[in-house]
Amino acid sequence: MEEKKQFTHLHELGEFGLIQKITKDISLKQASSVIGIGDDAAVIDNGDKLTVISTDLLVEGVHFDLMYVPLKHLGYKAVVVNLSDIYAMNAAPRQITVSLALSSKFTLEAIEELYAGIKQACNYYGVDLIGGDTTSSLKGMTISVTAIGQAHKNKIVERSTAKKGDYICVSGNLGAAYLGLQILEREKQVYLENPNIIPSLDEYTYLVGRQLKPEARRDIVAVLNDIGVKPTSMIDISDGLSSELLHICHASDTGCVIEERDIPIHSEAVEQALKFSLPPTTCALSGGEDYELLFTISPNDFQKVDQLPNVTVIGEITDKSEGCKLLTPDNKLYDLIAQGWNALLNKE
Amino acid sequence: MEEKKQFTHLHELGEFGLIQKITKDISLKQASSVIGIGDDAAVIDNGDKLTVISTDLLVEGVHFDLMYVPLKHLGYKAVVVNLSDIYAMNAAPRQITVSLALSSKFTLEAIEELYAGIKQACNYYGVDLIGGDTTSSLKGMTISVTAIGQAHKNKIVERSTAKKGDYICVSGNLGAAYLGLQILEREKQVYLENPNIIPSLDEYTYLVGRQLKPEARRDIVAVLNDIGVKPTSMIDISDGLSSELLHICHASDTGCVIEERDIPIHSEAVEQALKFSLPPTTCALSGGEDYELLFTISPNDFQKVDQLPNVTVIGEITDKSEGCKLLTPDNKLYDLIAQGWNALLNKE
Repeated sequence: MEEKKQFTHLHELGEFGLIQKITKDISLKQASSVIGIGDDAAVIDNGDKLTVISTDLLVEGVHFDLMYVPLKHLGYKAVVVNLSDIYAMNAAPRQITVSLALSSKFTLEAIEELYAGIKQACNYYGVDLIGGDTTSSLKGMTISVTAIGQAHKNKIVERSTAKKGDYICVSGNLGAAYLGLQILEREKQVYLENPNIIPSLDEYTYLVGRQLKPEARRDIVAVLNDIGVKPTSMIDISDGLSSELLHICHASDTGCVIEERDIPIHSEAVEQALKFSLPPTTCALSGGEDYELLFTISPNDFQKVDQLPNVTVIGEITDKSEGCKLLTPDNKLYDLIAQGWNALLNKE
Repeated sequence: MEEKKQFTHLHELGEFGLIQKITKDISLKQASSVIGIGDDAAVIDNGDKLTVISTDLLVEGVHFDLMYVPLKHLGYKAVVVNLSDIYAMNAAPRQITVSLALSSKFTLEAIEELYAGIKQACNYYGVDLIGGDTTSSLKGMTISVTAIGQAHKNKIVERSTAKKGDYICVSGNLGAAYLGLQILEREKQVYLENPNIIPSLDEYTYLVGRQLKPEARRDIVAVLNDIGVKPTSMIDISDGLSSELLHICHASDTGCVIEERDIPIHSEAVEQALKFSLPPTTCALSGGEDYELLFTISPNDFQKVDQLPNVTVIGEITDKSEGCKLLTPDNKLYDLIAQGWNALLNKE
């Protein structure tokens, strides 16, 4: 009897499982490769300075829906999400490349809109568009952006260097981008059921704006530098607070505890979450796409950081044996779990 | 009466037309951006050395057909085509990033095969895989590779610096990869018509190998360096000799004349072209995917280069007013035209 070969489906592994499988035997051999796979960006030594490289692939129907994402916003966001990874290394973005695969449904005018957004982001963040590739696709649009940044040698902040006793901080507020997406999805359904109803998004400007036009936290990196604080670890929040915090703790071989009541959530996000019958904390922990910075600081820097307007201290790094926990207002401890959006669940 | 807005379809523009439209108002503002869009790769100044960046997007059904491209070969080729761009700048590749969009039809085992090819290319060319992004697609596979190279400041060779009187050289031979593709396409049709016939490709090893497992001409860059010759301009041949030569002449503001009888074509390619009733010269001029190097040299270096085993001198750079010409054995001059594969002709 012939033995049947067993195959493993990608959705059984998930994105991080697949990455782990693929990368387990990869070692760095070039003297100039300082940091490889496993952080927000890779780092290359150029003698004088470090070059920081990050790349993201955005697929129509998976990462964006052109029914409600204007092409100009899409171009802007595609750049910003990559710059966010460069800032999360405590580096400054300098250049980007943009590759596009396009089906014939797109016109020149559509692509010019997309590039208007790309160029706007380049201007706002002061980065140069230096290259790319343009080709066709059988279906839809795929955008690949690579960001190239620069940092002085002692400036890079990794995700693997948090220490027990460090404070855990986040910039801005969390969950709003996820709720913005839920609103857009709901309005899309309403429209699909009755195309005569024109959706009004006026009352959701803040939440929808956080989804459609996120910004990278260049300001936070700058202010921390100004007050002389170098985070002990840092990551940007693209997949939700839980997932990113688990990345830091896993890479740093630590545990953590964060206090639910300290997680910053915008009042409009709280209100909207309750309307959707979602716990606001869940939106902040698992929502994703906020592109805020999650970082840890030495206890010595607490005073300096605690007074910053757009930074909230939400917890502490603990010993690995204590696990990764959420402390609720009624003093119960729950395990943090990564419920971030799983990019490999789509079926062909 | 409402005026109807006119839209421009991408296939009316073609890839280069679209790139021209999109990039016309892009200027470089960062002091470190040395070369932007328009060459094989972009160049960034890092004080001591230059960083060279190139990126390519490969789409299933457009750039590769998994019916006859083994995943391991695909991974290998995806890396090589990017390294080829780095060598074409006279730089040395050091690192790559690989981003993948995958539909659920792919298993872990399939992706491991792809990565086996990627890693084999990394090992062979001595580059590190330092990052990427893995996500899902609604249909098929898209691969985005970015290669990062290094060069000393006076080493970079652009495509815009050919001068009248320079000799035009190519490495290796041309047209074989295109003929390999025609054989694979033919065997695919035979198989689709009768799946019981197992195609035999044994007699086409060389041509099919040039299509499925191309190599980048690291050796040519090394030997030119060894004999102290710095090309006056260089480009890699991905879209066919005509198209690339026109790029050099357009960027350098020159004309050119190449002699048909000097274009290097492998004997198996000549034989196969005739079997397909294709002029061998057409395969070399318009075939593409050879990943050979096309470069120009100063007349002073002619003696040194003419004796190299894998380099052929095929013509001369002329004044712009003389146009870009092919001289046939019967002494007729024809305009060179770019008939390279147009990546934007696919319909959704």
